[in-house]
Amino acid sequence: MTAIRNINSTDSDFREKLDSLLTANDELGPELTRTVMDILEAVRNRGDTALVEYTNRFDNRDARIAELELNPNQLVEAAKYIPDELQHALEEAARRIRSYHEKQLMQSWTYEDSDGVMLGQQVTALDKVGVYVPGGKAAYPSTVLMNVIPARVAGVGEIIMTVPAPGGELDSTVLAAAHIAGVDRVFTIGGAQAVGALAYGTESVPAVDKIVGPGNKYVATAKRLVFGIVGIDMVAGPSEVLIISDGSGDPDWVAMDLFAQAEHDEDARAILVCNDEGFIQSVTASIERLLPEMERAGIIHAALENEGALIQVKDLEEAVEVANLIAPEHLELAVNEPDELLPRIRHAGAIFIGHWAAESMGDYCAGPNHVLPTARTARFSSPLGVYDFQKRSSLIRCDRESSKGIASIASVLARCEGLTAHARSAEYRLNETEK
Amino acid sequence: MTAIRNINSTDSDFREKLDSLLTANDELGPELTRTVMDILEAVRNRGDTALVEYTNRFDNRDARIAELELNPNQLVEAAKYIPDELQHALEEAARRIRSYHEKQLMQSWTYEDSDGVMLGQQVTALDKVGVYVPGGKAAYPSTVLMNVIPARVAGVGEIIMTVPAPGGELDSTVLAAAHIAGVDRVFTIGGAQAVGALAYGTESVPAVDKIVGPGNKYVATAKRLVFGIVGIDMVAGPSEVLIISDGSGDPDWVAMDLFAQAEHDEDARAILVCNDEGFIQSVTASIERLLPEMERAGIIHAALENEGALIQVKDLEEAVEVANLIAPEHLELAVNEPDELLPRIRHAGAIFIGHWAAESMGDYCAGPNHVLPTARTARFSSPLGVYDFQKRSSLIRCDRESSKGIASIASVLARCEGLTAHARSAEYRLNETEK
Repeated sequence: MTAIRNINSTDSDFREKLDSLLTANDELGPELTRTVMDILEAVRNRGDTALVEYTNRFDNRDARIAELELNPNQLVEAAKYIPDELQHALEEAARRIRSYHEKQLMQSWTYEDSDGVMLGQQVTALDKVGVYVPGGKAAYPSTVLMNVIPARVAGVGEIIMTVPAPGGELDSTVLAAAHIAGVDRVFTIGGAQAVGALAYGTESVPAVDKIVGPGNKYVATAKRLVFGIVGIDMVAGPSEVLIISDGSGDPDWVAMDLFAQAEHDEDARAILVCNDEGFIQSVTASIERLLPEMERAGIIHAALENEGALIQVKDLEEAVEVANLIAPEHLELAVNEPDELLPRIRHAGAIFIGHWAAESMGDYCAGPNHVLPTARTARFSSPLGVYDFQKRSSLIRCDRESSKGIASIASVLARCEGLTAHARSAEYRLNETEK
Repeated sequence: MTAIRNINSTDSDFREKLDSLLTANDELGPELTRTVMDILEAVRNRGDTALVEYTNRFDNRDARIAELELNPNQLVEAAKYIPDELQHALEEAARRIRSYHEKQLMQSWTYEDSDGVMLGQQVTALDKVGVYVPGGKAAYPSTVLMNVIPARVAGVGEIIMTVPAPGGELDSTVLAAAHIAGVDRVFTIGGAQAVGALAYGTESVPAVDKIVGPGNKYVATAKRLVFGIVGIDMVAGPSEVLIISDGSGDPDWVAMDLFAQAEHDEDARAILVCNDEGFIQSVTASIERLLPEMERAGIIHAALENEGALIQVKDLEEAVEVANLIAPEHLELAVNEPDELLPRIRHAGAIFIGHWAAESMGDYCAGPNHVLPTARTARFSSPLGVYDFQKRSSLIRCDRESSKGIASIASVLARCEGLTAHARSAEYRLNETEK
């Protein structure tokens, strides 16, 4: 029996049970923080020397600094050695991701207001971006596409990828994806030392303006610590799906979509919210029947037991309330009339609409990004996008005439705040005491 | 003599001198972090009781919890007691800020691609936002307008302002500004305890989804620590202006604009970059002549000595390079042909175009936000805006037919990554094994 918990909205302790599904981001342990601070400081102070030391030690290598950067040809070659079907899938996924993200491009704008003041926003891309890609068994080509393509679409000047090569080994598909996505330089480094190199720069690795991409707890901690020196994307927690079901559709599909979430790791969270008791029983039966044949059955079993839940609610209204409270990374609307629910969804990273839109399609190739807010951060943050690689400068222009109105308001407010140089700067314009 | 440093791009150590103007965000001291963590934990665990204890201790008060929330009438009353001229200036500033920020509103969008897949973004506002406003001498009504109005324009459900009342005293103009900007609730609390109350919620103070607004080092540290539980705006460093001059215009105006920056505090940074040696001498003379008559002469003198610089460059091209390297919070283009420089500016929080656009107008009322990226973070971040109070959910919808293409790509890539439940979830749709 799979020990996935059953929760019913009529339970007297319903809210407490829901709260147990609402763990926020882990706080950092002081031990881990200290370890990572030491690595960052070493890379900051000793540059390449420290970078090579840590890389050889943690990745079990014997490399010199010059060997840590890949020759661009290695990416081209890698793309040749993967099966045609895989190459085609990567290219098609890249095309779809690019096409979607092009819709996100922000443009500069200006307007003249009724006083003749020109106001606006000048949008520019970041100069340099670092993309951290995990190595070893967690080397995912989809990570490369999802992190690199939005930066490329934004017009970022230079994209530098880091990927550790434990024992010197690299995944060809990851390199092929880097080639397809359009990475400029690749360094085979990882861990907190890679984050430090990208944040501070070394003799060989250029300092970037922002670091994105997933990583283990050392990488996540390092990113938190360098935030402010460089920009970072979100620090991601375990992956989550919440499926709202009205009892329509195939329980096997729902079970498999829960498995797809649960197979990530033992902390992944898969939740079904359904107003149909019979359907919940059917899904439970599907889980029992299908789980033994899954390749990653052990991980799925543990994840469902640790973090899974089958939640029975009285109606779809209540299902939406639960979804908004949990603010899931992925939300599937596995119902016959999803359009009725969609406008009421307030907090979710990505919404999969109807029975045919499975989360796994969004994970790989539908087009939208698979880097999504976890751990309830969808309450205040958004998927990774082109907008994360662009920034805005406010524009303010006025002339002798149009400056009068705003100069006089600024003068009053500055004097109220006791900032008289501010006031006098505005009053110079107001009184035209130009010599 | 004002000891503002002179730097020339022909100096052999020019780059080193520039680097001394590039201090990044301060790192957090471990002492400070521990103190703030203790306060946050106490508020998290003991709620109102801890909040009242800290408030009475740090703000020298003797209040009960119920007294910490203002009655809405107090805001209305405050607005009545300020001078008409000030009230008018606040309202006019609010109108201009609102009008500019309305241009930033993001809208939801969807489209159908050539495969018949519907993709898009659903934009929603945050539910609850906390605005931290400093108290005592640093109580600035402009802070209230600039932080509250974008949230209101975004459609945030509830805006909760906190402002400490040292000794029980509150600034009427700040309360009037809160009324004009449209704050929903005001608590007279401050420091790390206010940040903790907003992040975790107490019996009296609701938990919010994001906390914005400036504060001292305790507030800044607390915001960093609760990031992830809630969203935060940037942690701001000292304020900065960089003025590019071609030697045209009035040196008194340039001197006063440098003063307006320097009067904020002794760490504020005011930099002139100019290709005209004679004009730099004129500005130096203006500084000498005007400084003694300034109300905040002591602060200005210290700031110019600590952080100010007059940089001579060989041409405007080089001036733009220096500006892009420094990535200033405020950039004034005090030149006759600013349009030639504008497209080459890559990194700046706000750009003031031409001699008539003084930074102080932007600080108060031009329309754009005065909460801007400091300490070179304009390389990767943007002014506070409506977009900080909205978020996006990706939308993916397909049907029996349109799911085929993406399901087959997802299947290939998922199997390549060893995630077979992902693959099978897609393959269910591909093979229509619906029962």
